[in-house]
Amino acid sequence: MGKVWLVGAGPGAPDLITLRGARLLAQADVVLYDALANPELLALAPQARKIAVGKRCGKQSTAQAFINRSLVNSARRNHTVVRLKCGDPMLFGRAQEEIDALNEAGIEFEVVPGITAALAASADLGVPLTVRGVSRSVTFVTPRVGASEIGSDWAQAVLGTDTAVLYMAAGQAGRIALELIARGKPVGLPAVVVENASMPDRRIWTLTLGELPQFAATQLSGPAVILLGEAFRRISAAETLEAASRINAIACAG
Amino acid sequence: MGKVWLVGAGPGAPDLITLRGARLLAQADVVLYDALANPELLALAPQARKIAVGKRCGKQSTAQAFINRSLVNSARRNHTVVRLKCGDPMLFGRAQEEIDALNEAGIEFEVVPGITAALAASADLGVPLTVRGVSRSVTFVTPRVGASEIGSDWAQAVLGTDTAVLYMAAGQAGRIALELIARGKPVGLPAVVVENASMPDRRIWTLTLGELPQFAATQLSGPAVILLGEAFRRISAAETLEAASRINAIACAG
Repeated sequence: MGKVWLVGAGPGAPDLITLRGARLLAQADVVLYDALANPELLALAPQARKIAVGKRCGKQSTAQAFINRSLVNSARRNHTVVRLKCGDPMLFGRAQEEIDALNEAGIEFEVVPGITAALAASADLGVPLTVRGVSRSVTFVTPRVGASEIGSDWAQAVLGTDTAVLYMAAGQAGRIALELIARGKPVGLPAVVVENASMPDRRIWTLTLGELPQFAATQLSGPAVILLGEAFRRISAAETLEAASRINAIACAG
Repeated sequence: MGKVWLVGAGPGAPDLITLRGARLLAQADVVLYDALANPELLALAPQARKIAVGKRCGKQSTAQAFINRSLVNSARRNHTVVRLKCGDPMLFGRAQEEIDALNEAGIEFEVVPGITAALAASADLGVPLTVRGVSRSVTFVTPRVGASEIGSDWAQAVLGTDTAVLYMAAGQAGRIALELIARGKPVGLPAVVVENASMPDRRIWTLTLGELPQFAATQLSGPAVILLGEAFRRISAAETLEAASRINAIACAG
């Protein structure tokens, strides 16, 4: 019986995986990876069999049962199995389903954390998520407009926090903004969209909450996060352009 | 004129730094490091001059002006300066003060994200911070009981979210719990204290919000986070003991 390591691949840039994650990839017999995990990461596992499990980072998945089954079957046949998950395994990655499947099958597992997109976006922008006197709380949330889940009100979480980072939200940015404004958030609240955080092709849009409905998510080609909060007021449109060129320079150097 | 890299050291385990962070340490002329950054991390920078800047991870610092000055002076004298910060540089690390000082002095900088303690604690516990149908929001916050800051209500942030991770909070755990209960959080809400996340000497306490006032922070010897939320209900006391022994096994293997 093998062992499964749920490893955070990080936000995209292949050198933002942890040393431990890279070492485990080098030792792996099998790697089950999300569709958008950077192909360069797979090169860190030269001897492993690589299995794409079809999940796209930052998108809802429809094939969780298939992933669970693949994980269990791989662990039954192999010594070291790496489940390479986008960002951090324990955030918005349906890790509980995979952990439940492993527990049910009696398969040992460990979790190796990864850099989540919010932290990468903040690093890209050069703007901290918390700032003394401005923001002492930051909330990561997947909004779900028009749907209710017991014990969970995504908008309440955004309303109560200083800085919010919305995951898997770009496609419904307009409806999210309208709901937040209806519930009292100011239209002038700074909003920043970061697509492909940490990657050479990353893009940044600086808006306000009131301008988010104009934002056309159709122009996005990769996963994006939306950052909301006074912490981002200092990024004017001009500064963003400057930051974006600086960021591209970083990407080429990295 | 040198360049400064604000690098996240991660939660403590030296192999939870990113590949990029490790590479920058190897290239650094100078490393300015927080007091609790793992000494093994400094071994990744054999040729660098190492300067302890006195800040303790997970504690309020009183010497920010000294750190800012050291950073600027180092960058004026050296090519590659690494500012090694606990966890992630952009979370609760007073990065804005350091960035302001660098900008004022006209010194170029970049940020390399790191694994923050909340993600390491979740990995240690084997319990995700978000779980479908239970938790779709997670909030990281530094509570400040009895003090007010314009635009920031730490308790509101905790009340609105599904999962909360409290940083720099163990010393006032009782007052935090009382305020949250007074404002409507149930006394039976699961609360987990994780000290020294990711380290061989990590310790875990499984409680409820109502039991937090009994928790004696004096028994802590390292930085700790407090996790609150229904996502942690599955960890009973017995399971925690089991998890703790498994975790120690991980630490020895890692």
